[in-house]
Amino acid sequence: MKGKRTDLGDSQCGIARSLQVVGDWWTLLIVRDAFKGKVRFGEFQKSLGLAKNILSTRLKKLVDQGVFRIEADPDAPASHRYLLTPKGEKLGITLVALWQWGEEHCFAPGELAYQLVDQSSAEPIARLHLETTGGKSVEAHGFRVGPRPGTRAGAQSRLP
Amino acid sequence: MKGKRTDLGDSQCGIARSLQVVGDWWTLLIVRDAFKGKVRFGEFQKSLGLAKNILSTRLKKLVDQGVFRIEADPDAPASHRYLLTPKGEKLGITLVALWQWGEEHCFAPGELAYQLVDQSSAEPIARLHLETTGGKSVEAHGFRVGPRPGTRAGAQSRLP
Repeated sequence: MKGKRTDLGDSQCGIARSLQVVGDWWTLLIVRDAFKGKVRFGEFQKSLGLAKNILSTRLKKLVDQGVFRIEADPDAPASHRYLLTPKGEKLGITLVALWQWGEEHCFAPGELAYQLVDQSSAEPIARLHLETTGGKSVEAHGFRVGPRPGTRAGAQSRLP
Repeated sequence: MKGKRTDLGDSQCGIARSLQVVGDWWTLLIVRDAFKGKVRFGEFQKSLGLAKNILSTRLKKLVDQGVFRIEADPDAPASHRYLLTPKGEKLGITLVALWQWGEEHCFAPGELAYQLVDQSSAEPIARLHLETTGGKSVEAHGFRVGPRPGTRAGAQSRLP
């Protein structure tokens, strides 16, 4: 990636911290492929058409960050399999949010031939929506950042 | 960005199409800043520490893709303001998903001083969760891609 890269690993913003881990385009597509059952280096490479050295760097970062774990491939003990950790599996919500946004805004009418469904029942996944902890519906742009009670931020005016 | 870039604009995958629009690290941070009320080139630049030419390219792409619209700045008519379109506002769900993942996985205990709250009531935003259209809870990694009824994909075996 080009550009003067600000290190946002210390930012108080949860979005900036997440993007520090999974913020480039390829990285989330590698995670997507893992959700589709791919586990081997060659499978990711074939799916994404990425140069081997680039894919290798991305996978190493994802392992270092705890999104994937490595285990020996039972079918080829000299090789690895890349498996999502529980932390990696939690990215499913972000992938669904991206899928649904793409579905709504990036296809021509009638063009989209697929949908997300529950793995076990094949029933469609409902559209994600925001609500408060008290159950009030919130529009997609109806949130802001606020201080967390019991932390020092309560006394600060500058938001992350 | 480095790497042999596959054009995924024709992919049947909603995630790939979304990432085609908002897939680089900086792009989503620009959208995040817009959610925080920033509208001017200089405001985005100061917030992100991006080189002007890079920011300019990113903003132009986001305008071309319909995520932002441009209007004359009422306080400085020779300048522009960048405002989110309804399509851009819908990215709020993705930003919340990223925030919540970062909140859970990218902070040390006690480190996170902020939370997402409803703009009008200041009540905390609840954690996003997956469920089916029939209301059954689905784990974060419990979905897959399936054919959409009434489309040609019903007859195909290859998923996007």
